[in-house]
Amino acid sequence: MIEVDCHISIKKNGISFLNAVRTELLKEVALCGSLSAAAKKLKISYQHAWNMIDDMNKQAPEPLVNMQRGGTNGGGAVLSVYGDRILREYGQIEAQLKKMVSQINVEINL
Amino acid sequence: MIEVDCHISIKKNGISFLNAVRTELLKEVALCGSLSAAAKKLKISYQHAWNMIDDMNKQAPEPLVNMQRGGTNGGGAVLSVYGDRILREYGQIEAQLKKMVSQINVEINL
Repeated sequence: MIEVDCHISIKKNGISFLNAVRTELLKEVALCGSLSAAAKKLKISYQHAWNMIDDMNKQAPEPLVNMQRGGTNGGGAVLSVYGDRILREYGQIEAQLKKMVSQINVEINL
Repeated sequence: MIEVDCHISIKKNGISFLNAVRTELLKEVALCGSLSAAAKKLKISYQHAWNMIDDMNKQAPEPLVNMQRGGTNGGGAVLSVYGDRILREYGQIEAQLKKMVSQINVEINL
């Protein structure tokens, strides 16, 4: 089966700070309230998750996640108001584009 | 400046065989008629270009490029009829999606 797929990213000054993988991490952070739990759920290391969040927070116009490093549970992590908003916007944009891609997949015959 | 970007890929049975980077390679192959010249233009090694084409040819429903390895010019390379068709289709799909993304970029305020 041949099909078109599309991936979106959000950039600031041409540099991507949000993509599908990072969005999954944000969703897990929002659900778990902890970066270590989110990392565990996604089967990635705490350090890798921390680096992704740190990069996003520095690249984005405002931090997406408020983090407290350390502590017995690896520190708490919550989405900022901006993080919550951009996550919802990302979901809406992705849904719009995926809908268009689905239509294209019905029409094309590759 | 915050903006959404989108990248498309074409998959067979869930495995991508064509994306933006590979499309650039196909375009250069079509222009140059030689894989070594195309690789040089894109500043990648001949081996890397060859591997990409080999992977595409094996993954896609039909080979995209007909190659002759070796010779003084590193062998000739031409797009197959299927390669030419899929390259045009990719361009059209990309243009459609990029147009939608441009509209989204006017509307959003991230």
